[in-house]
Amino acid sequence: MILKERLFTPGPVPLPPEVIKALGQQIIHHRTPEFTRIFLEVREKLQKLLNTERDVLMFASSGTGAMEASIVNFFNENDKVLVINAGKFGERWRDLAKTFGLNVIDYQIEWGKTYNIDKLKEIVENNKDIKGILVQQSETSTATYHDLKPLAEISNSLEDCLLVVDGITSVGVYEVYPEEIGIDILVTGSQKALMLPPGLSILYYSEKAEKRLEKSNLPKYYFSVKAESKKQQKGQTAYTPAINLIIALNESLNLILREGLPKLAKRHALLAKATQEAVKELGLKLLSESPANSATAVFSPEGINADELRKIMQKLGIRVAGGQDHLKGKIIRIAHMGYFDFVDMIEAISVLEVALYKMGYKVELGKGVKKVQEIMIEGV
Amino acid sequence: MILKERLFTPGPVPLPPEVIKALGQQIIHHRTPEFTRIFLEVREKLQKLLNTERDVLMFASSGTGAMEASIVNFFNENDKVLVINAGKFGERWRDLAKTFGLNVIDYQIEWGKTYNIDKLKEIVENNKDIKGILVQQSETSTATYHDLKPLAEISNSLEDCLLVVDGITSVGVYEVYPEEIGIDILVTGSQKALMLPPGLSILYYSEKAEKRLEKSNLPKYYFSVKAESKKQQKGQTAYTPAINLIIALNESLNLILREGLPKLAKRHALLAKATQEAVKELGLKLLSESPANSATAVFSPEGINADELRKIMQKLGIRVAGGQDHLKGKIIRIAHMGYFDFVDMIEAISVLEVALYKMGYKVELGKGVKKVQEIMIEGV
Repeated sequence: MILKERLFTPGPVPLPPEVIKALGQQIIHHRTPEFTRIFLEVREKLQKLLNTERDVLMFASSGTGAMEASIVNFFNENDKVLVINAGKFGERWRDLAKTFGLNVIDYQIEWGKTYNIDKLKEIVENNKDIKGILVQQSETSTATYHDLKPLAEISNSLEDCLLVVDGITSVGVYEVYPEEIGIDILVTGSQKALMLPPGLSILYYSEKAEKRLEKSNLPKYYFSVKAESKKQQKGQTAYTPAINLIIALNESLNLILREGLPKLAKRHALLAKATQEAVKELGLKLLSESPANSATAVFSPEGINADELRKIMQKLGIRVAGGQDHLKGKIIRIAHMGYFDFVDMIEAISVLEVALYKMGYKVELGKGVKKVQEIMIEGV
Repeated sequence: MILKERLFTPGPVPLPPEVIKALGQQIIHHRTPEFTRIFLEVREKLQKLLNTERDVLMFASSGTGAMEASIVNFFNENDKVLVINAGKFGERWRDLAKTFGLNVIDYQIEWGKTYNIDKLKEIVENNKDIKGILVQQSETSTATYHDLKPLAEISNSLEDCLLVVDGITSVGVYEVYPEEIGIDILVTGSQKALMLPPGLSILYYSEKAEKRLEKSNLPKYYFSVKAESKKQQKGQTAYTPAINLIIALNESLNLILREGLPKLAKRHALLAKATQEAVKELGLKLLSESPANSATAVFSPEGINADELRKIMQKLGIRVAGGQDHLKGKIIRIAHMGYFDFVDMIEAISVLEVALYKMGYKVELGKGVKKVQEIMIEGV
């Protein structure tokens, strides 16, 4: 049988036709007025996306590259930082900070939970010299949302602390306006809600963060914010840019800005709700106590291996992600960020139902689908 | 909201990625050994598709062009032909034959029905001099299947009669082997189950038909079978070929032959069954008494205009076709030929449910979807 593969992994996510078309074009040279014009256009649209007039930089790297840039440009050796470590990507903040010699307070949170505000305040009370709070807005490994507002307040209450946010699976999902929220450094990547292939990362930094640039003594070359900023303001890059991704980003930002951030955020909230409600309707349990709008992480039922379930779903045409580390074989993760609509979620849920049925789990076919349809009717 | 349009019209149908990729390539010149090599490869694959070693021609035209070629190359003025006229495309046979001065017996059949064998025998009994029986294997306007075997028998019982089959929505849906069935002329088009854009038509003719080529006195130039046959056997065409469609056809034939005709036919039968059963589950009535595996034509419920229903489905991301002529506003047609799988049919049915619900029709959400899921479970 024809096997169509439909991607529901939390990165990469499906590409819109406009993006595919842009990617399929003949390459242009980057040291040309033509590229500069496009680059500056994209830069302006990124500023609109983040509702800022400040510098927004692009790196030819995956999201982790921009995370590294957030460390090496804005901190010094032995700086004390607090990592909100609630999953695989929280661990990445910790490991990155340690690699560059920062003094890490590793606030470990059970996977699937968000931070406890009292616990956090207690840590901060005893560590007034914290120079940075590092967090994921959406922790992809557990599909968990961390509320940034209280973190911004805490950060602001300290003498010299930056709120550093990994927005890799939140920018393009929520309305993420760093100045409004109080984010000092915000990074994201291309292969999530920006609906592009991987290979491009984005970094915003606040005025407060900018003051750190001169003082930071950590080694940086490729990820030098100062070097890139100087160039990118003029529509060029310090090193070879990811030309076709930037051209394609122009297209995906057109789509995003045309839909409008409030509507886009509402769509993601509804698709998330529909997916969460649908899996609950099937008797399944969500991993997260604070589910994100980017993806839904759900436990496979007792006695059913989640990776087996994924394999069967894949044979039926739907590719979802599994769990990492101790969650391997226990959860599946269904993405709904970027180029997704209600019909997509019906696809995913209907195939989840069929796969569970085939594995002997008692499931009423169509029951989860009906939930998505109901929320579709409310929402459209 | 992002609006994804998913095509469920009975032509054009969605293109597989392999075809899109081929279509997106730089053009090559057709008077080259490179093109000849590809052309002959495609020709051979078409022969495999039809299980024949005879001549199979390609024209740069829509399917109607090959229908015209079937008339002008194999008939003479005043030849008596019997048209099985059970819909819009039956009418096309009639109009084409009349245009070229043939003597047409127009056997009109109520739309949605197939021929009556006794009635047919009666006509033939009184018209032993019939030179051709013209029929659609799948009448697209009513999604009705006409069984060819009895027609082949009748045709063979006559002194000099050709069975001329419009296989535009049947080749690539069923196992259509003209020699086994007894088809003398078979035509098809690119934008149906061959999964290509429109613009390429295909014509097979039997040994018996070939004998007519010399005698036929009807005017033909662009659609000259003799001229094309001479050229195409050597890997060239009389006039400029549809280069990129032929290159893309190579890809879609690879997909078809890799799946294998028996499996392909079974898939189409199952998708058709799933769609038919699902709409019946919703309380809707099929138009056809002999439903085809290419598409499903279904009446909208009492008091619901089918074209309004289509518009709402379209707003939800699914484009289906409507009815033609007196069926306008009364039916919708959902295609399932070509690049379709069960998940696709779940998309179409789920959105049909939601659209009906929104129009105030009493529908149990998920009920039709469940039917598709059940047949999916049997079938996969």
